[in-house]
Amino acid sequence: MQSQTTFTEHDEMYMARAIELAKKGRFTTTPNPNVGCVLVKNNQIIGEGFHQLAGQGHAEVNALAIAGKNAQGATAYVTLEPCSHYGRTPPCAEGLKKAGVVKVIAAMVDTNPQVAGKGLKILSDAGIDVAYGLLESQARALNVGFFKRMEQGLPYVTCKMAASIDGKTALKNGQSKWITSPAARQDVQLYRAKSCAILTGADTVLVDDAKLNVRLSELPCTLPTDLPLRQPVRVIIDSQNRLTPDLALFEIQSDVIIFTIKVDKSLQWPHFVKHIEVSESNGKVDLQAVLEKLGQLQFNNVWLEAGATLAGKMTELNLVDEFVFYLAPKLMGHDAKSLVNFPELTSMQNTVDLTFNECARIGDDLRITALKTH
Amino acid sequence: MQSQTTFTEHDEMYMARAIELAKKGRFTTTPNPNVGCVLVKNNQIIGEGFHQLAGQGHAEVNALAIAGKNAQGATAYVTLEPCSHYGRTPPCAEGLKKAGVVKVIAAMVDTNPQVAGKGLKILSDAGIDVAYGLLESQARALNVGFFKRMEQGLPYVTCKMAASIDGKTALKNGQSKWITSPAARQDVQLYRAKSCAILTGADTVLVDDAKLNVRLSELPCTLPTDLPLRQPVRVIIDSQNRLTPDLALFEIQSDVIIFTIKVDKSLQWPHFVKHIEVSESNGKVDLQAVLEKLGQLQFNNVWLEAGATLAGKMTELNLVDEFVFYLAPKLMGHDAKSLVNFPELTSMQNTVDLTFNECARIGDDLRITALKTH
Repeated sequence: MQSQTTFTEHDEMYMARAIELAKKGRFTTTPNPNVGCVLVKNNQIIGEGFHQLAGQGHAEVNALAIAGKNAQGATAYVTLEPCSHYGRTPPCAEGLKKAGVVKVIAAMVDTNPQVAGKGLKILSDAGIDVAYGLLESQARALNVGFFKRMEQGLPYVTCKMAASIDGKTALKNGQSKWITSPAARQDVQLYRAKSCAILTGADTVLVDDAKLNVRLSELPCTLPTDLPLRQPVRVIIDSQNRLTPDLALFEIQSDVIIFTIKVDKSLQWPHFVKHIEVSESNGKVDLQAVLEKLGQLQFNNVWLEAGATLAGKMTELNLVDEFVFYLAPKLMGHDAKSLVNFPELTSMQNTVDLTFNECARIGDDLRITALKTH
Repeated sequence: MQSQTTFTEHDEMYMARAIELAKKGRFTTTPNPNVGCVLVKNNQIIGEGFHQLAGQGHAEVNALAIAGKNAQGATAYVTLEPCSHYGRTPPCAEGLKKAGVVKVIAAMVDTNPQVAGKGLKILSDAGIDVAYGLLESQARALNVGFFKRMEQGLPYVTCKMAASIDGKTALKNGQSKWITSPAARQDVQLYRAKSCAILTGADTVLVDDAKLNVRLSELPCTLPTDLPLRQPVRVIIDSQNRLTPDLALFEIQSDVIIFTIKVDKSLQWPHFVKHIEVSESNGKVDLQAVLEKLGQLQFNNVWLEAGATLAGKMTELNLVDEFVFYLAPKLMGHDAKSLVNFPELTSMQNTVDLTFNECARIGDDLRITALKTH
């Protein structure tokens, strides 16, 4: 087994194709990772596939099904090390071996401890030429949430923030409709659709009477598969049991998880609502415990769309990995409401440091992404 | 005289060159505009020049000096309509005519009422082929300040703002060093150097003991001409006569203008300091009157680098044309100080609306430019 340092242009082209294929699973594969596979023989693609839905065929299986017997002697390009374990489907490393593939190039080794090099070893032990490390950063970017969960047991949390360019989210009197443009709000729908869960606080649900669902009609793109739109699980922090079943949130028949310190059993909840008790921290739900629980529930990507207090607390506890700021071309002035609440900082050494990633124009607004410097 | 709607690729290439040349005057031509000129004969550049310093040769004169007698029969590309009036130098339209140029393509008609088509008319009346409107928006961008002053009698005001991504400029305790990176602060030096004046309030001078000069060693580029670095005039709003001659500001022997309601004659000021009295508005210097005065003093571009109160007041009075935001990848929290102070807004209809222009990465920070929607 070797990490080849030089790959050919053709190798790169086929791996780029495998990455494109993998992305087609971005709305559906959870809790599994997005994976793509391309089978090549005599410099021609003879089969390709991607993982679409947990419990169904992995990328390699789908590509092999197309190639059939022709797979004998082919090279397989996969965006992730083929799996070595029996899950809901048999291990792909065995499948590639049986099909007679002679070379496997993986973009990266799987950090899932159940795999972690074992897949490549099965192939290598069978005399198959094995290499990895091609377009690795792109391949890793496909599955930041899956890898974080595998490595740390926690989901990858992306915090959405929307404000005027002077960092204000609402006027002093509470008015905030609308700060950002319709295009920015559509873009949010896309992030929601790609997430396993949307996390917010009871305040946001109560103040906005928010449904927090994904609206297909508002997505700025068509779905890449025939599968129906999957609704991310709506996860609400409700330390004081302030939610009631009559809220608009519960009009949408789709999973809701409510985290609380102690469940109030006097209320009747719809069947799709689940309460989870977690330990308390200063009278509120312990957010670290919430994230650990979400990791156990196999959530890879959590989209945090909350008010300044919960967003601030999550940030302070180092539970946010990435920020997506939508900034509108408006100035609202000093007494409008601020983006994020922290306990008072007394030294510039204590500011929360980020690293800017991308800046894009979305309608009239800017979308700025930044990674938390951990 | 005609505005040709189709120009050739060659025309565009030569005009682009003329625009590049014009930019070389950006640190020096004030109060004159930046202008570039390229003379072409038989598809070869036979002379080119740009305006470097008020009182010295205009772009056309400098280009004609290089071409000499060869200018006979040439085409002139100029970024601005050649002047028609006797100022400190004779009119360029006459110069081009005398040199025997057969065609003149101007990027745009001069909006200076002293010219306003008269230059092109002189040429056209002399039988010279005349066209205009090539790369006009780029040519206009060279001189937004000059044109605003010509058209409205007021300078073009660019307001600099530096904050964390959540719109904060200092901690509650006043600490602010440093929010932005050294690269962003160098970039500010470049904007200062291109400006005719730096405008700020007494507060900023007193709190930071700021010198507000341009430091050649901190400029992120070399100067485009052999001329020494011109210091923009430092203009301070000091309604209450709080400045004193012992401040660091006055260590730099370079022009200062102090706007006040009533000059305090008890203090001795260095020779380069000038006080100007203007009318008052609610106990403070009338900012509209300040800008009118700066227009009369022939300032084209004013760089506003002030605190949240003066920046807010200038914005409120619709005296700012453009904003340059430097946003650092930091979160500082709700009780840190805000970017801009306005009287409380009670409706989202009343936010100050901008249009985003560009977003660039400057070191670790972002520089976002936006135009005020007037």
